[in-house]
Amino acid sequence: MSKPNAFYAQSGGVTSVINASACGVIESIRENRNTFGKLLAGANGILGALSEELIDTSLETKTAIANLRYTPGGAFGSCRYKLKSFEENESEYKRLIDVFRAHNIRYFFYNGGGDSQDTANKVSKLCKKLDFPVQCIGIPKTVDNDLPHTDCCPGFGSVAKYIAISTREAALDIESMCATSTKVFVLEVMGRHAGWIAASSVLAREGEGDAPHIVLLPEIPFSKRNFLKKVKLTVKEKGFCVIVVSEGARDSRGKFLSDSGGGKDAFGHLQLGGVAPIIANMVTDNLGFKNHWAVADYLQRSARHIASGVDVEQAYQLGRAAVKLALQGKTAVMPTIIRKNDLPYRWSIGEVKLSKVANIEKKMPRSYIDAEGFNITKKGISYLAPLIKGEDFPKFKNGVPIYTKLRKQLVAKKLDQSW
Amino acid sequence: MSKPNAFYAQSGGVTSVINASACGVIESIRENRNTFGKLLAGANGILGALSEELIDTSLETKTAIANLRYTPGGAFGSCRYKLKSFEENESEYKRLIDVFRAHNIRYFFYNGGGDSQDTANKVSKLCKKLDFPVQCIGIPKTVDNDLPHTDCCPGFGSVAKYIAISTREAALDIESMCATSTKVFVLEVMGRHAGWIAASSVLAREGEGDAPHIVLLPEIPFSKRNFLKKVKLTVKEKGFCVIVVSEGARDSRGKFLSDSGGGKDAFGHLQLGGVAPIIANMVTDNLGFKNHWAVADYLQRSARHIASGVDVEQAYQLGRAAVKLALQGKTAVMPTIIRKNDLPYRWSIGEVKLSKVANIEKKMPRSYIDAEGFNITKKGISYLAPLIKGEDFPKFKNGVPIYTKLRKQLVAKKLDQSW
Repeated sequence: MSKPNAFYAQSGGVTSVINASACGVIESIRENRNTFGKLLAGANGILGALSEELIDTSLETKTAIANLRYTPGGAFGSCRYKLKSFEENESEYKRLIDVFRAHNIRYFFYNGGGDSQDTANKVSKLCKKLDFPVQCIGIPKTVDNDLPHTDCCPGFGSVAKYIAISTREAALDIESMCATSTKVFVLEVMGRHAGWIAASSVLAREGEGDAPHIVLLPEIPFSKRNFLKKVKLTVKEKGFCVIVVSEGARDSRGKFLSDSGGGKDAFGHLQLGGVAPIIANMVTDNLGFKNHWAVADYLQRSARHIASGVDVEQAYQLGRAAVKLALQGKTAVMPTIIRKNDLPYRWSIGEVKLSKVANIEKKMPRSYIDAEGFNITKKGISYLAPLIKGEDFPKFKNGVPIYTKLRKQLVAKKLDQSW
Repeated sequence: MSKPNAFYAQSGGVTSVINASACGVIESIRENRNTFGKLLAGANGILGALSEELIDTSLETKTAIANLRYTPGGAFGSCRYKLKSFEENESEYKRLIDVFRAHNIRYFFYNGGGDSQDTANKVSKLCKKLDFPVQCIGIPKTVDNDLPHTDCCPGFGSVAKYIAISTREAALDIESMCATSTKVFVLEVMGRHAGWIAASSVLAREGEGDAPHIVLLPEIPFSKRNFLKKVKLTVKEKGFCVIVVSEGARDSRGKFLSDSGGGKDAFGHLQLGGVAPIIANMVTDNLGFKNHWAVADYLQRSARHIASGVDVEQAYQLGRAAVKLALQGKTAVMPTIIRKNDLPYRWSIGEVKLSKVANIEKKMPRSYIDAEGFNITKKGISYLAPLIKGEDFPKFKNGVPIYTKLRKQLVAKKLDQSW
């Protein structure tokens, strides 16, 4: 019988480095031909497994795979699809295992956030129960940096670097114009539940009191009064004020500030808008300062051109580590980042049981936020600073990065599609 | 008597490469100590001249000046302040010349857009009239790329590169998720009067039909019907649709789409919002597709980390060329970029009289836009493509670019401040 195949899928919101993990997995699999057959990747994540749309990665060139390290987005497609519980939808799990069986898949690599680690854990249990041994290995990924038991999550460091640099650059712009023009700039960043990304906007400061002057985090209930007071004082002292606001910023009752919109435009559409224009207009209405605002949205999590060298390397090594865990015969585990030292930054790879990771959200510690609630403490900066270090620029041609395009050829289906 | 001094000021909205022009001016002045005394820079642009706040650039280190090439924003401060006509406010012009006389300033370098070239021209005329010879040299700068008689404007190429790359990166993100999540992404870019920046979003396409699928330009009156039809078709064919919209997009009556907002949020504030959320909500309301949108705002014009190598070099060389024109005894002129060839791109420096530049806006030719009005023609791409070529990364330390900070020490004032 031929050597068993492996399956790899990308899950949930993609990052600028998730393909670096894919690169690590595929290169490692290729280096271990004695153990592994083919690596099949799910087209659009786990949906590809359910629909038996399996991409044959063995048909991709070595160069294409190597270039995955430099390419943002999810090269095989990802999805927002969470398998339900066994009780609710056992048939989905059984279908998954039918597909695995049909394609001789004995290794399941699942690259995603908390939900995905939960799924991988469930699949592992069911495989045991059905006496069809599949080793299930999770690979961490999330710009939200909210997985427990790993010091950080691949994807986060690159967003953090992008936001830190963008904040600094925009601040230099505002500062040069503030005598006669825009005095307040608001940048909205991702982070629905935790302020990790907003917090990292402080990392490109050169000195005390540099921009950003105010960071609005989901962890600290928004006080309009304190906020406006701080803006007024900052403009008085510095001549301008740069504000970074997390999309998840909320009021004292826990209501998202972004939900406070809801006007209708001339087309009669509900204005769902971001929180940045709400904050910016609040400043102008109350203090009269001219404002500008930006919403980085997907630009921040796809900005591979300015990815963190540390982040890319960790994403890649976690992909390789996942294969190593499989080679060691392990299942229901996820490789993790262990921090050994802040400065100089040193890290290594550890592992954790999936049962410990699933469905737990790591919050930003209160000790990372200063008493006033608008700034990040030294402790917070010590944690964040190493994660944005180093550059790992893609190659450029004609002024734009060379991002890889895969062939993505599917293997022939073997099963009834009307499951 | 000591050698005559020169004056340099930055004017209007800053760019990521205006300091590269400043670098060219200052280095050239320093190389010609036989001719020039000190270079004094206006704090906050021309306002610094009126208020006699003159920065002594001779006190800046060689390294700091060299690093200006890598630093976005306006290092000496800029302003949005247009001198009125002689008739309306002759006293301002006279004050300017009083300051020049008091500080032995015989060279006036003005780094800005159309308005600034107009001002430099007026100052030149008045100096002649008052028999106080000051050589007035303009240096082009504007992200809007709208100055006539120069093939392009420093600042534009870098914004174009940032927008091209960001569009490509975000598109890779959307493409990987579109099976189950966001299907339509809208990116709003600068360009109130012309679509140069929006047009450049097509430059990172790899093949026909790649994102962006729709470019909304101020030059083409917006048709809701045609637009929605195109979005629907694109999602059907590609699975997703990426739209780049110019902030200046307008309807058939010339009204800005961004003005069609005007709902009120829960705080009772008028929602001034950008055009991106309006377009995005229009799509979702009419076609039901999940949307995401981004507004790049100042991030685009300050993104020195991904500046165009061609743009940086042109900005620097135009600064040097301005000093060369002064050395040749010229006045009321501006150095320009002459395109010699598209591919391979070759350019040289020319010159034009300020009277020909002042207050003329260069529009994007209709021949650069396809018949349907949503895409850029090959002719347009031939023009745009060379301007984003090459990288000129800043140096990095601890993961963030090293941007220079100047001492900005002012020379002692000599005049009555109550003019």
